[in-house]
Amino acid sequence: MGGNTESPDAEAERLSTPYAGGWIGGTHHFALRVYFEDTDVAGIVYYANYLKFMERARSDMLRSAGIDQRGVLEAGEGVYVVAEADIKYRRPARLDDELVVLSEVREVRAASCLIHQRVMRGRELLADATITAAFLSAEGRPKRQPREWLEAFERLKREREK
Amino acid sequence: MGGNTESPDAEAERLSTPYAGGWIGGTHHFALRVYFEDTDVAGIVYYANYLKFMERARSDMLRSAGIDQRGVLEAGEGVYVVAEADIKYRRPARLDDELVVLSEVREVRAASCLIHQRVMRGRELLADATITAAFLSAEGRPKRQPREWLEAFERLKREREK
Amino acid sequence: MGGNTESPDAEAERLSTPYAGGWIGGTHHFALRVYFEDTDVAGIVYYANYLKFMERARSDMLRSAGIDQRGVLEAGEGVYVVAEADIKYRRPARLDDELVVLSEVREVRAASCLIHQRVMRGRELLADATITAAFLSAEGRPKRQPREWLEAFERLKREREK
Amino acid sequence: MGGNTESPDAEAERLSTPYAGGWIGGTHHFALRVYFEDTDVAGIVYYANYLKFMERARSDMLRSAGIDQRGVLEAGEGVYVVAEADIKYRRPARLDDELVVLSEVREVRAASCLIHQRVMRGRELLADATITAAFLSAEGRPKRQPREWLEAFERLKREREK
Repeated sequence: MGGNTESPDAEAERLSTPYAGGWIGGTHHFALRVYFEDTDVAGIVYYANYLKFMERARSDMLRSAGIDQRGVLEAGEGVYVVAEADIKYRRPARLDDELVVLSEVREVRAASCLIHQRVMRGRELLADATITAAFLSAEGRPKRQPREWLEAFERLKREREK
Repeated sequence: MGGNTESPDAEAERLSTPYAGGWIGGTHHFALRVYFEDTDVAGIVYYANYLKFMERARSDMLRSAGIDQRGVLEAGEGVYVVAEADIKYRRPARLDDELVVLSEVREVRAASCLIHQRVMRGRELLADATITAAFLSAEGRPKRQPREWLEAFERLKREREK
Repeated sequence: MGGNTESPDAEAERLSTPYAGGWIGGTHHFALRVYFEDTDVAGIVYYANYLKFMERARSDMLRSAGIDQRGVLEAGEGVYVVAEADIKYRRPARLDDELVVLSEVREVRAASCLIHQRVMRGRELLADATITAAFLSAEGRPKRQPREWLEAFERLKREREK
Repeated sequence: MGGNTESPDAEAERLSTPYAGGWIGGTHHFALRVYFEDTDVAGIVYYANYLKFMERARSDMLRSAGIDQRGVLEAGEGVYVVAEADIKYRRPARLDDELVVLSEVREVRAASCLIHQRVMRGRELLADATITAAFLSAEGRPKRQPREWLEAFERLKREREK
């Protein structure tokens, strides 16, 4: 890019801001790098850690859709939990790999939604999962999602189907 | 029962031996307790950590069937990896809970096997999963399992079907 | 060796009970095995995971001293947190290793205590740490520990010094 | 803010690139967000996970100094491991918090170096640690670091002392 033309303050600001993903059409993109903590002695990413990558992507997706999980949790109004995860591991990821998690809202119901997620390394599909996320009350019972959330999910689903 | 009648040496030996699960009929039992590391801010076990519990149980199952994963890995002969996990979360586990993972071999193929696992708290089913474990060569390609392993799995499967 | 003489029910009971550590003199013993989740691509236990092993041992130590962390946490009365950890890594642990965490109470103060912990593989010292655990109120401020806890810690410290 | 003026391709490129930290003077900055996986039932980041944050920052620091950990590891030439970590926890981090890890090289020796790291939330210091990282041969013995690495560390240390 012909040299860093940013001011020192802009650079400090950029470095101090965690990565945030975003939408391209109805698909949410979330990039991450593989660190030592993610790998195991077989030299590849430990299988449970793909679910961590996918949760980071879903949390970012909710945040970018204006949904404040921490606020709702702290107010005792409820929490999203995963009710089912069906994940296929196709190729292993390795230390230092740059991955992107692609997420799409597939179905929206009163108290849950279905999200499809793919972990990509460039054009290679490493893993993909169908996740059912259910909204639960503080007592752990299925609960209707806040109306604004339902509307946000419906909007994201329509965006994808365009 | 009615006072610790063990000798000090027997007690030291018992305390220095990690838990090992075992078989009752064709079902492998593996008990564990929930620690802080397993929980999240929602007050329950984080969803990816059930896959850790299940992997511990599978590793113990293999060990008790005479299968030495570390030896095979270090010899560069191959490694078991999970090719698919379909997990349903039914009730949350919490800090200090005593859990038991029940594992059963459902199908045995040349280069893979299908294992059904349930995470129980007493008689309550908290989560259950169907796991496809594939044997891969050091280069990451599907590979026929060692003959003794195939035989061990076949034996465990028959035991369950009795 | 020479046949399992336990009754089937006793065996089921034993398999369904998670490991619990215990005291030999003033030293708490807690055994565990290294699983895939604990290792990293360098083939050894990832450095942060020793802190998990040590926390499991401390939680077991508190439980066996009659201290109910979950009850106190749920009652909103406070929580133990680590204020400082100084850990030295001396030799690496590997997959399948059988480890024992040895813990000793070194100092007891009104709102904190100092615990020394060693991770052993047989007679080899793999890592050792000095941990300062502080008792905090639900609002996160230092708080005097419940009297029974102070007494329990004092007793354990005296036991060690015998 | 006034419309996204990036082209769709530039946006896709940006979203597909994981965060990378960087240097301001001799201090390396690495930002991250707290996800569910990082927290525990006490509602705060689990103490061992700060070591994960710090390792991500150190790996990024090495990468940006031109040091290829994965390449050296795969070539069997050696690996950096932590020999000692002394960490003080001052204030808890919570779900969704935006953190920055600040890292500085303090001392450089033939086979090790000393790194000071702080985890900040804005201007608040949450945790700080002194980390001794040792370079080990594939057989696990202390080994002189590659000359270019030593020079890179020396350069970073001088930069900080300016």
